[in-house]
Amino acid sequence: MVRATDTRQVILDAALRLFEERGYAGTTMRAFAAEAGVATGNAYYWFADKDDLVQELYRRIQSEHRDRCAPVLGAGGTLQDRLLAVEHAYLDVIGRYHDFGVAFLSTAVGSDSPANPLSAASSEAREMSLAIYRELVAGARPLPTPRLRAVLPDLLWLCHLGLTLFWVSDASPDQHRTRRLVDTAAPLVTGLVRLGRLPLAAGFVDQLGRVLAVALEQSTGTVAP
Amino acid sequence: MVRATDTRQVILDAALRLFEERGYAGTTMRAFAAEAGVATGNAYYWFADKDDLVQELYRRIQSEHRDRCAPVLGAGGTLQDRLLAVEHAYLDVIGRYHDFGVAFLSTAVGSDSPANPLSAASSEAREMSLAIYRELVAGARPLPTPRLRAVLPDLLWLCHLGLTLFWVSDASPDQHRTRRLVDTAAPLVTGLVRLGRLPLAAGFVDQLGRVLAVALEQSTGTVAP
Repeated sequence: MVRATDTRQVILDAALRLFEERGYAGTTMRAFAAEAGVATGNAYYWFADKDDLVQELYRRIQSEHRDRCAPVLGAGGTLQDRLLAVEHAYLDVIGRYHDFGVAFLSTAVGSDSPANPLSAASSEAREMSLAIYRELVAGARPLPTPRLRAVLPDLLWLCHLGLTLFWVSDASPDQHRTRRLVDTAAPLVTGLVRLGRLPLAAGFVDQLGRVLAVALEQSTGTVAP
Repeated sequence: MVRATDTRQVILDAALRLFEERGYAGTTMRAFAAEAGVATGNAYYWFADKDDLVQELYRRIQSEHRDRCAPVLGAGGTLQDRLLAVEHAYLDVIGRYHDFGVAFLSTAVGSDSPANPLSAASSEAREMSLAIYRELVAGARPLPTPRLRAVLPDLLWLCHLGLTLFWVSDASPDQHRTRRLVDTAAPLVTGLVRLGRLPLAAGFVDQLGRVLAVALEQSTGTVAP
């Protein structure tokens, strides 16, 4: 006897398998249903369309990431230690999706694709993820300067996107190179917090904020549709 | 009467059209030849295989980029002005490949793909591109500190890769958002050169070098094949 919530998961798992095999464009809701062993109408009961299914996957990953980070985020600690914990937790969560990631990337990067992490359709998952980085920064001790705190969540989130891309193209066993990149890069935030206290750094940090605003503009909805 | 070098270009153009239409995996040398109106054997005379053709495209872009940058690179100037000129010249060169870029990205990101910019197969085009950034830094006045000079070419090149990714997913007319990102980000190097003179920045810059070494490891061939 299969429960309703299991059906949803079975369809999602089937979709992931078919994405890997045939790519995003080569798959249909009908095919997901067949692969999952359910009626097509049943699949449509759970997901409006393929894009809806992808957003569910995004939200699921963010939700699981958030759950794994919660103890660390609530426990204080330095920015560096918190960042290390948050990124390693993320790699724990996404590990099982590595094969899917390569097949999916082309779709996720398309500027008009709802699956683009910066698209309007992805805003719920993106906000879930950004919230982690805001909390990461807000709860760090010692606190960075207010000026640096204003840019750090977006900066860390953008680096986190870059890390995801590195992970997708990481062919090492269990993507251990990505783990090493996290361990090597995390000390940079400690240096950044120290440098951020210097008067000479003020202009640099403000300019960095302007760069992030342009880079993440799609997510703020300021671009005409 | 079509000259030999024109034939090579005609095949390359035909391949680009088919990449856009059918994706990289969905195309063949035979199809390129048919699209170009030449015999399949003729196509194989010019290109060993599809990957060879992609590398030719990469080298052509780098060579054209280098030619456009040459006057600026030989003329001194600040790091910021040189960087602005180099990136805008790059965007001038790649503008015509924008539609191709989206279709091609999934192939280029695959870790075992010769088309990955960090792969061994791409080393010739990568070295051509890296050489531009080395020259950009070496000829800048005022000169950054030796410590910063040691990391800047790799850092700028990695940012340049990131910019290319941003450009691929940029849906604005003529990718003007990417131009704006270049203009907003370029002043950061001036700030970086100033901060780099502070004793407090030494550890940060050295750590940055270690991060770049891990991030670009594939290109150094230190990973077991």
